[in-house]
Amino acid sequence: MLALIHELFPICRSITGEGVRQTLRRLQQLIPLEMHSLPSGTPVLDWTIPPEWNVRDAYLANDRGERVLDFRRNNLHLVNYSVPVDRRVEWSELQPRLHSLPAHPDWIPYRTSYYRPEWGFCLSDRQRQQLPPATYHVRIDTTLEPGVLNWGEAYFPGETDAEYVFSTHVCHPSLANDNLAGIAVAAFLAQQVASRPQRRFGYRFLLVPGTIGAIAWLATREARWGKVRGGLVLALLGHDYPFTYKQSSCGDREVDVALPHVLRQRNVAFEVMPFEPYGYDERQYESPGVRLGMGCLMRSRYAGYPEYHTSADNLERLHPVRLAEALAVCGDLVDVWEANRTYQNCQPRGEPQLGRRGLYQSLGGHSDAQGIERAMLWLLHATDGSQSLLQVAVRSGLPIAQLQRAADLLCQHDLLREISGSAAK
Amino acid sequence: MLALIHELFPICRSITGEGVRQTLRRLQQLIPLEMHSLPSGTPVLDWTIPPEWNVRDAYLANDRGERVLDFRRNNLHLVNYSVPVDRRVEWSELQPRLHSLPAHPDWIPYRTSYYRPEWGFCLSDRQRQQLPPATYHVRIDTTLEPGVLNWGEAYFPGETDAEYVFSTHVCHPSLANDNLAGIAVAAFLAQQVASRPQRRFGYRFLLVPGTIGAIAWLATREARWGKVRGGLVLALLGHDYPFTYKQSSCGDREVDVALPHVLRQRNVAFEVMPFEPYGYDERQYESPGVRLGMGCLMRSRYAGYPEYHTSADNLERLHPVRLAEALAVCGDLVDVWEANRTYQNCQPRGEPQLGRRGLYQSLGGHSDAQGIERAMLWLLHATDGSQSLLQVAVRSGLPIAQLQRAADLLCQHDLLREISGSAAK
Amino acid sequence: MLALIHELFPICRSITGEGVRQTLRRLQQLIPLEMHSLPSGTPVLDWTIPPEWNVRDAYLANDRGERVLDFRRNNLHLVNYSVPVDRRVEWSELQPRLHSLPAHPDWIPYRTSYYRPEWGFCLSDRQRQQLPPATYHVRIDTTLEPGVLNWGEAYFPGETDAEYVFSTHVCHPSLANDNLAGIAVAAFLAQQVASRPQRRFGYRFLLVPGTIGAIAWLATREARWGKVRGGLVLALLGHDYPFTYKQSSCGDREVDVALPHVLRQRNVAFEVMPFEPYGYDERQYESPGVRLGMGCLMRSRYAGYPEYHTSADNLERLHPVRLAEALAVCGDLVDVWEANRTYQNCQPRGEPQLGRRGLYQSLGGHSDAQGIERAMLWLLHATDGSQSLLQVAVRSGLPIAQLQRAADLLCQHDLLREISGSAAK
Repeated sequence: MLALIHELFPICRSITGEGVRQTLRRLQQLIPLEMHSLPSGTPVLDWTIPPEWNVRDAYLANDRGERVLDFRRNNLHLVNYSVPVDRRVEWSELQPRLHSLPAHPDWIPYRTSYYRPEWGFCLSDRQRQQLPPATYHVRIDTTLEPGVLNWGEAYFPGETDAEYVFSTHVCHPSLANDNLAGIAVAAFLAQQVASRPQRRFGYRFLLVPGTIGAIAWLATREARWGKVRGGLVLALLGHDYPFTYKQSSCGDREVDVALPHVLRQRNVAFEVMPFEPYGYDERQYESPGVRLGMGCLMRSRYAGYPEYHTSADNLERLHPVRLAEALAVCGDLVDVWEANRTYQNCQPRGEPQLGRRGLYQSLGGHSDAQGIERAMLWLLHATDGSQSLLQVAVRSGLPIAQLQRAADLLCQHDLLREISGSAAK
Repeated sequence: MLALIHELFPICRSITGEGVRQTLRRLQQLIPLEMHSLPSGTPVLDWTIPPEWNVRDAYLANDRGERVLDFRRNNLHLVNYSVPVDRRVEWSELQPRLHSLPAHPDWIPYRTSYYRPEWGFCLSDRQRQQLPPATYHVRIDTTLEPGVLNWGEAYFPGETDAEYVFSTHVCHPSLANDNLAGIAVAAFLAQQVASRPQRRFGYRFLLVPGTIGAIAWLATREARWGKVRGGLVLALLGHDYPFTYKQSSCGDREVDVALPHVLRQRNVAFEVMPFEPYGYDERQYESPGVRLGMGCLMRSRYAGYPEYHTSADNLERLHPVRLAEALAVCGDLVDVWEANRTYQNCQPRGEPQLGRRGLYQSLGGHSDAQGIERAMLWLLHATDGSQSLLQVAVRSGLPIAQLQRAADLLCQHDLLREISGSAAK
Repeated sequence: MLALIHELFPICRSITGEGVRQTLRRLQQLIPLEMHSLPSGTPVLDWTIPPEWNVRDAYLANDRGERVLDFRRNNLHLVNYSVPVDRRVEWSELQPRLHSLPAHPDWIPYRTSYYRPEWGFCLSDRQRQQLPPATYHVRIDTTLEPGVLNWGEAYFPGETDAEYVFSTHVCHPSLANDNLAGIAVAAFLAQQVASRPQRRFGYRFLLVPGTIGAIAWLATREARWGKVRGGLVLALLGHDYPFTYKQSSCGDREVDVALPHVLRQRNVAFEVMPFEPYGYDERQYESPGVRLGMGCLMRSRYAGYPEYHTSADNLERLHPVRLAEALAVCGDLVDVWEANRTYQNCQPRGEPQLGRRGLYQSLGGHSDAQGIERAMLWLLHATDGSQSLLQVAVRSGLPIAQLQRAADLLCQHDLLREISGSAAK
């Protein structure tokens, strides 16, 4: 994953333009990603696809023609979506166009102006202090013209038409944790899902420009909303922080039970935070008329770590072990979703005699049955047709995989049967 | 408020009689208070209006004709509702008629005998110990005759016929915190409510003798019960204790959410106690066949502070700052009630684009929107027609006033609409 | 109780056989216990009554004919339900047939093999280490033949056909806490219930061999399931541990409220644990197709104390005071069940005037009414027809007995009436 991130880091992404396409094309080498597009001006829900933005060059030059700020050295220097400019600018006019962070004098901030025609430069506060007051030459060689908005979509169909969604944003330029960490985890997770021998459900991976990309997908795929059983937004997974799971709006959808269960079973530190309408594209997927049942998995939190949206969110701060752990958690989540059936006890009056079916240790008097026997007893007790395997897992504290093995055994002996089409929580 | 309390303090109030009328007449100078009355003997719910009680004079005199206990020096000396007496009383007969508090030897207790014909005197235990055993002359020049029960009522109508009720008791004689503090807060709150430029709801202020007054109001105004959206009993608001909010019987009525929200927003210390059937007139308003949805706001608690129902509940112990704070909290509560509408998001699929409506800052990349933008996002997310503004305020932690401003903005842009006639919680 | 336990201790009980009959016959001297039986081979729910097992003798003898392990010295030495054997056995063949506890070298474990034809011996690990490797003579003079399964049942009918169930297991040999403590408490409780002057409900006492006995009762009494309002499994009540109450499967049945209330009122230490499908016969009574609403009262927990299922669970470790306390708690529980009616306030609009009915102290101004008056106020407030006396007890913190007295008083004055046939929680 780290290698992929290194490769993608230098690209200047935005919500539209060549950077996104380059990124998606690179990912197509790893996973069967379709690149979708909608032309500028297309109405999508309450929004409109904006003009496409591309940068050829951008710099601020002094009298001697020296580039004091150069987009080619760091694409954060240019305010994302800056309109074209090519003229001399007075020191006083320049000031409000310059963005720096006095509290972090060495870091360059990341700024955007997607929906209002502006321009500007970002720089470290240290550099700003050293910039001699003068007239400068501003050269912003960008285009902002009719084009397309792109997003990537990979769908791995399952036995049923229902699906789960993973989504991550792909619109940030040279920032590592936000959003390359999410992109890498999503790509490798997609590979794993692709290679599963069996899938009960479909899995959709969305690599979308933030907000407008999610809106565009929602607008074009309204017929699928009802098929989505839940999902997860992936973001900020590369730093050495404990996990934060942000719940869906309701807070009691399947993913809200499944993900904490997975994290608890892995015995990793995590916090659960309730939904709030700031953050990533869960804002769109959980809007009141949509509510797909999606949470968000993060390590560092949205707008909640010092390096957020600055040049300090760089490659050095990524922890490969943390990325790998995030990938593993997502894999476990898929396992839970796949396993989460609802069963009916076929012999609900008293406990069935497991011993004569060879399902129970022969010698009694010991302390309790361990492992599989405990799982069988829990299943027989709890499966009155209303509780899913995940709910039994939570109630019993047993891993769902063990309950799944126990359920298979009990089904073989006609003691349990799956309730068909069970849309479990 | 303190001046008003000083003025009212000397009056000998009881559940009936001239003291209540005098008190209400003084309040009529401040607010448009109607004085209501019901004649003795009138059945009211399960009760009957008692005879009216008035005191001309009362004392205990020794052999030398010296008044050792004199109603004119402190109206607590006479057991409230004492029947007329004028005779010499043996020391042994006198003993059970004398009430004192050995644990607080300097305090005179407050005692009543409304519904059983008794008489008696209250005195400090120190004085009692010094009283020489002897025969005394008891002179209680009271009348207990057919008359009326009075209560005060001020109604400030609103745009709709629904109303909120504030109630406080007016039957205690020279006690300061119990009940003059409540009377003062109610009176000044009524002034504020009267001068509001606009009222969605009606506001009723009830100044009633404890129990029988509330029962009388309920009995004569049964047709209004269904119009009451909730309310608050005011009591014991003058001492330097943190607030105690006593919930309605259900514990989940609008006032049960609104008042803690107000106190939290003001960042003042408070405790919430569940309903119990001892206390003030919430006992009546929350009885099982009535349940108006009323809580009770106190500082010191009912029967829960050392000076309760003694001469030590005096003017010196009142804190003007605490009274003012209680008034402010009640004002905030009215603001919440007025603001608590339920809205429907008109654009619930994805977030609407606030930027193109001029509702959002132009330059992205910053940390989160603050204030009004945050309020707009919360509203758009939470208003699916089932959550009131108050519920959004609680969920988001934002002040309801800010949400109200945001809702107004969003309504102007047709992004939100009020659900008419929303009876919110 | 202790004398009874001493008397029953030496008997070699199992799930079938003479030991159970002997035990039940002894109990018949104390309570009107019917001994029921079902023949071997009878199908009961998913199970089949096993052959009856009886032991004449059993030992392990060395070359010199000395009994190195002798069933007559301790019936735990023989694995319960061992098949007959009479032959010389090689040291290597013997090893897997010997059971000891290296962690507790002086204790003999208790082992069973009810449903698989096996044999074996249990011994202290210390003795095992000293046993010279050799060929031994195994003599197990048992019979495993068609016979019957027995259980004891005492039913004390009530005014209505509904009933509560107490159940305890009677299948353990010389173990004191598990199960003689439960047997003793059940027997003495049955005596108390028998001598109650009045019973609203029937009370059934089941003394059953673990699992198969409960299954047998369920199978033969299916028509009664619907009449059972709840019940309690009694086990492990003799040790000096705080109480553990294990909830019914739902966790909100009447017993789940009643028993913690009783323990709280007695001010004894206790813990509540949620249901889990290991333990005693609550496993059967609470299976998904049965769910009688039964919890389990223990002190030491199932499989949760060091001496569990070993010879160290002996008479010396029993605490008579703890047994007596458990008996008292069960008596209180019966009292709660008997008292737990649902009432309707007949005068629900405002509080009724208790004073004129002589139900209230005459002199006001005191702090609150205590005791019976408090109970009357709570009842008048809470009895809107939906809350049972037990629920009012929990809400108010008052003892149910006091509420019962208050309810009787209020009923006499037509202020309250019982809702007939109220099946309260």
